[in-house]
Amino acid sequence: MEIGIVGLGKMGLQLALNMIEHGHRIIGYDAVEETREIATEEGLEVARSLEELAANLSKQRVIWMMVPAGAPLENVLVTLAGLLSEGDILVDGGNSNYKDSMRHAEEAKKKGIYFMDLGTSGGVSGARNGACMMVGGEAAAFSVIEPVVQDICVKNGYLYTGESGSGHFLKMIHNGIEYGMMQAMGEGFELVEKSLFHFDSKAVAKVWNNGSVIRSWLMELAEEAFEKDHHLEEIKGVMQASGEGQWTVETGLALQVPTPVIAMSLMMRYRSLEEDTYAGKVVSALRNEFGGHAVIKDR
Amino acid sequence: MEIGIVGLGKMGLQLALNMIEHGHRIIGYDAVEETREIATEEGLEVARSLEELAANLSKQRVIWMMVPAGAPLENVLVTLAGLLSEGDILVDGGNSNYKDSMRHAEEAKKKGIYFMDLGTSGGVSGARNGACMMVGGEAAAFSVIEPVVQDICVKNGYLYTGESGSGHFLKMIHNGIEYGMMQAMGEGFELVEKSLFHFDSKAVAKVWNNGSVIRSWLMELAEEAFEKDHHLEEIKGVMQASGEGQWTVETGLALQVPTPVIAMSLMMRYRSLEEDTYAGKVVSALRNEFGGHAVIKDR
Amino acid sequence: MEIGIVGLGKMGLQLALNMIEHGHRIIGYDAVEETREIATEEGLEVARSLEELAANLSKQRVIWMMVPAGAPLENVLVTLAGLLSEGDILVDGGNSNYKDSMRHAEEAKKKGIYFMDLGTSGGVSGARNGACMMVGGEAAAFSVIEPVVQDICVKNGYLYTGESGSGHFLKMIHNGIEYGMMQAMGEGFELVEKSLFHFDSKAVAKVWNNGSVIRSWLMELAEEAFEKDHHLEEIKGVMQASGEGQWTVETGLALQVPTPVIAMSLMMRYRSLEEDTYAGKVVSALRNEFGGHAVIKDR
Amino acid sequence: MEIGIVGLGKMGLQLALNMIEHGHRIIGYDAVEETREIATEEGLEVARSLEELAANLSKQRVIWMMVPAGAPLENVLVTLAGLLSEGDILVDGGNSNYKDSMRHAEEAKKKGIYFMDLGTSGGVSGARNGACMMVGGEAAAFSVIEPVVQDICVKNGYLYTGESGSGHFLKMIHNGIEYGMMQAMGEGFELVEKSLFHFDSKAVAKVWNNGSVIRSWLMELAEEAFEKDHHLEEIKGVMQASGEGQWTVETGLALQVPTPVIAMSLMMRYRSLEEDTYAGKVVSALRNEFGGHAVIKDR
Repeated sequence: MEIGIVGLGKMGLQLALNMIEHGHRIIGYDAVEETREIATEEGLEVARSLEELAANLSKQRVIWMMVPAGAPLENVLVTLAGLLSEGDILVDGGNSNYKDSMRHAEEAKKKGIYFMDLGTSGGVSGARNGACMMVGGEAAAFSVIEPVVQDICVKNGYLYTGESGSGHFLKMIHNGIEYGMMQAMGEGFELVEKSLFHFDSKAVAKVWNNGSVIRSWLMELAEEAFEKDHHLEEIKGVMQASGEGQWTVETGLALQVPTPVIAMSLMMRYRSLEEDTYAGKVVSALRNEFGGHAVIKDR
Repeated sequence: MEIGIVGLGKMGLQLALNMIEHGHRIIGYDAVEETREIATEEGLEVARSLEELAANLSKQRVIWMMVPAGAPLENVLVTLAGLLSEGDILVDGGNSNYKDSMRHAEEAKKKGIYFMDLGTSGGVSGARNGACMMVGGEAAAFSVIEPVVQDICVKNGYLYTGESGSGHFLKMIHNGIEYGMMQAMGEGFELVEKSLFHFDSKAVAKVWNNGSVIRSWLMELAEEAFEKDHHLEEIKGVMQASGEGQWTVETGLALQVPTPVIAMSLMMRYRSLEEDTYAGKVVSALRNEFGGHAVIKDR
Repeated sequence: MEIGIVGLGKMGLQLALNMIEHGHRIIGYDAVEETREIATEEGLEVARSLEELAANLSKQRVIWMMVPAGAPLENVLVTLAGLLSEGDILVDGGNSNYKDSMRHAEEAKKKGIYFMDLGTSGGVSGARNGACMMVGGEAAAFSVIEPVVQDICVKNGYLYTGESGSGHFLKMIHNGIEYGMMQAMGEGFELVEKSLFHFDSKAVAKVWNNGSVIRSWLMELAEEAFEKDHHLEEIKGVMQASGEGQWTVETGLALQVPTPVIAMSLMMRYRSLEEDTYAGKVVSALRNEFGGHAVIKDR
Repeated sequence: MEIGIVGLGKMGLQLALNMIEHGHRIIGYDAVEETREIATEEGLEVARSLEELAANLSKQRVIWMMVPAGAPLENVLVTLAGLLSEGDILVDGGNSNYKDSMRHAEEAKKKGIYFMDLGTSGGVSGARNGACMMVGGEAAAFSVIEPVVQDICVKNGYLYTGESGSGHFLKMIHNGIEYGMMQAMGEGFELVEKSLFHFDSKAVAKVWNNGSVIRSWLMELAEEAFEKDHHLEEIKGVMQASGEGQWTVETGLALQVPTPVIAMSLMMRYRSLEEDTYAGKVVSALRNEFGGHAVIKDR
C-alpha cells in the first residue's frame, strides 16, 4: 500500500526502508533538509513539505508520524489537519503520552479522520528488520493498516489493543518495565565489577544469556556492550530519560498502584543527571550542625 | 563419568536424569526415604546412606550436592568429611551463600579435598534439558567435572569463574537481577490490569515476547502463566524469598554500592508476607494524633 | 476584624473559635446542616447559605475557606464568584494543589477579587491553640489579613511566601517531608517491636523526645499514641493519603529531582490500602513457572 | 563519683566537662598526645596511658569509653582486660554495633567485669549541656552509673533498656530514623530550592519550626544552617555514613521488616560518595545499544 512517513530520523527512516522492502510505496518527509537528503540517498521518495506529501498520496491517505512527542508532533498535527480529508488515517508511531493520544483521536474524529496510537518497540534494528507494535484506535482503521504493520513486525509482533490511547499506554508500561530491568542489570553488574572476585563482565553476560532465568534481549545487548568496552570505561553513567518512565510512575500514583522499582529506576536516572544534589547539601549541613561532622567544601 | 548426587528433590533429580541421558553413571542419595523411592521409580540407582554412596563411587570421587543451604548442607558436609579421601571433589550445586562456600572450600582443602561452588540457573526445566552454571573453585578440579557440566548445560551455558566462592557469588547477583526484573514486570502488569483500558495480559506478554526490547525468558513464563490463569485469580501475591536477594542487598551495603531496585524488590517481598505492618500502625496512629484522621480498628 | 468561614469541620471550627478568642467577629457556614448545628452549639454565629454569609459581611469582605480540595472547593468558588464584590478577599486555607490555587488566583483577579492560598499546619490542636501558616497571594491582600493570621498562629508561626500558589506549594512540601518523617519513625518502631530485646515503645519515644537528635513533635505524638495503646493493637496499619504526598512526588518528577524517601513513604501507604497486590501475583506466578515454587492459593 | 574517660575527641571531651561541672572527678585518656594536651588545657586531669588511668581510679572502677567502633575499641578493650579487677564497670558510650556489644558483655562477664552498652544522642552540644542516653547491660552496674548518667542528660533523657546490646540497638534504630528524617528534609528543601517560586529556605525552616507538624530539632538545625549559608553554596552534598544506618537496614533484612525509607536514605548517601556509577554506565550502554541513544563520553 501507499504510506506517507513524517519524520525520517533514526526510527522513521528504518521503518520506511522496512516497508519498502515489503513492497509498499513510501513517500517520506522531514522538517530538516539534511535529514531529507540522507533519506533521498537511501533511495526514499521524499516530499519537500507536508502539503506536497498530502498532495502526492492517494486517498484514503495513511500518514505515519515518527516525530518527537510534544511541540514537534503538535505542529505536524495542526498542519496536517488542514490538508487531510475524511477517512484519512493518521498513525502516531512515536512515544507520545497516551493522554495526548486520546485527545488527538478525539480531535481527529471531529474531522472524520482516524488517529491511531501505535507504540513501537525493538529499537533501531527492530525498526529495520522486524519491530514490535502495540496499536490503539478504531478497528476500522486498524484493518486498513494491519497488512503493513504485519509486514514490518516480527511474527506475532503486533497487538491491536482497542480504545484510542491503549497502544501508547501499553508502550509506556513496556518502557517502565524496561527501566526496571535495565536498572536491575546495572546494579548487578556494578556488584560484579566491584566484587572481590575477578569477573569478565562480557563472559558473565554471555553465560547468563545461555540457559539462565534472566536471559533476555537486554542481556544480549549487555554482552555486546561489554564486548566493545570491557569495563565501559568510555561511557559516563549519565542516564537520560525520554518521558515514558515518568508517565508510568505518574500513572501508578494516579491509580494508587505502588511502583517502587520503576520509580527508583527513574529517580536514579534523574540523580545521574546531576553532579551534586541539594538534598545532599542539606543532609551534610545537618550532620555538621549536630555532630560537628566535617563537610566537604564546594567550589 | 561417575557421579554421586546428594539431594534428589526438584532440582537434584532432574540434573541426575540429565546426566544419565548424557551417558554418565549416577548414584543418588536423599535423606528422605520417599524422595529416594521416587528417584528409584525414575530409574535412578539410589544409595540408602551417604556411607553407601561413598563406598560405591570409584576414586577420585565426585559428589554433587543439591541440598538446601544452611543446616541441611552443613550436616551433609560433616558426614562426608569422614567418608571422603584426598583428591575427591565436592560440588555444591545449591544456592549457598558465597561466604559459606569460601569457608567450605578452605576447610575441604585442609583435608586435600576439592570443594566447588556451582550456581545453577534455568529452573527445573533447565536442570532437565539444559541448565546454566557458574562454577568457582580450583581449576584442577574444574577440569575433572567440566565434561559433565558441559553435557548438562545448554551451549555456552557454563562459566568457570575462578576463586572459590565466585560461582555462588555470581549466582547470587543473577538472582538479585532476577528479583528486580520480576518486580518490574509485576508492577507493569498491575498497571495493565488496573488501567482504564481493557487489555488481555496474555496477549500483552505475547506481543512483548516478539520483537520488543523487554523480550526475555521471564516474559515468556509470564505469557504461560497468564495462559493458565488470565487474571491470576488463583494465586495469592505472597512472594517468598530464598536468601539470595537478601545477600545481594547486603553485599551492596558492604561495598557501598546503591542497589535501590534490588532492595525494593526484596522489601516488597517481605511486605507481601505480612497482612499488616507495625510501621503502618505507627503512621496511622500519628495521623490520628495530629489530624484527628480516623483510624481503622484492628481486630 | 470580621471574617466569614466556609467549612466548619474539624479544622474550620477550631480556627473559628481561635479567631473569636482573639476578638474577631466570625460568621460561619457549612453545607451540612448537622455541622452548622454543632458550630452553633459551640457559640458560633452561623449563616444558612453562602448568600446569607456574603450579605452579612461588611466590605472589604474576607472569606476563609476550609473546604476539601477538588469538587467541594470548586463548587464554593463558583457560588461565591456571583456574590462577592471588587476588593473582597478569598482565603483558601485547605490542602489544595498549588496549581489549582494559581488558577483560582488568576480567575479571581479578573473579577478584582483577591485569592490567597494559605497552607495550614499544626493539626487540629494547632488550629485551636496556635497554628502554622504559609501564605501566598498578593501582598496588598496579605496586609489586610495579616493581623488575624498573626493572632491565630504561634509566635513566628506564619510566613508570607509571595506569588500565588507559593503558600500551598510550601504546605505540599511540608507534607511530603512529614510523610518521610512518619514512615521513618514507623520503620524504626517496627524494628523496635520485632527486635530480640524487650522495649517499651512508649518509654523509647519518651527518651527520644528528651535530648536526642530526633526529638520532634511527631515523636511526642508517638509517645502519646503508645501511652494510649502500648503496641497499637487496636489500630490497623492502613495509611490513608490526602493528595499532598502524591503532588510532592509529581513535582519531583516534573523538576527531575529524585525524591526516593518521600516516594517510598507514599507507595507504602498505597500498598497498605490493599490486602494483596497484582504485582505480587505476577512474581509469585513467575517463581512457580521457573522454579516450581509453590504458590499460595487465593480464595 | 570517679570516672575514667577513654577517648577525648569531640564527644568524649564534652561529656567529661559535663561530668566535671556536675561535681564528678574525671581522669581522661586519649591515645593521641595532641588530644591529651587539648584536654589538659581544658582543665582535665589526664593520664598518659591506660595503665596509669587504671592505676589512678579507685575500685569499683568505672571506665567510660568514647572510642570509634571497630579496631580502636577492640584494642582498648584488650588492654583494659589486663588492667581491670572484678566488679569494675566498662561503659561503651560510642556507636558500636549491638552484636559486638553483646559479645563484649559476654567476654567481660567471664572476668567478672560489667560491660554496659550506652548509646549517646544529642550531638556535641548535647554531650556538653545535656545528652540523651540509652543504656543496656546488667541492672546492678546500671544502678552504679545511673547518678552520673542522670547528671549529664537532660531531664527524662535516659532510659535503661535491659539486656546487653539493647542500648546500642536502640541507638542504632534512632540513627536509622534520623537518616530517614534528614533525607526527607533534604528532598523537601531541594524542591523548595528548585521550585518556580522564590523561597528563602531559612525563613521556611523557621516557620516550620513554629507550630507545624514537622517541627523538630533537626529542622531547627536546618534553620541555623541556612542562616549561615542561605543556599548551602559552600557545602558539597557528600553524605558520609558511620555504620548505624547500614546496620539498621541489615537488621530489617534479617527480621524481614521492610525499611524502604531508611534503606533509600542510606543508598542516597552511598550514591553521593561517587561521582559516577557503574550501574549508570550499564544503563547508558544498553540505551545506546538498542536505541542508538548517544552516550556521554567519560574521560
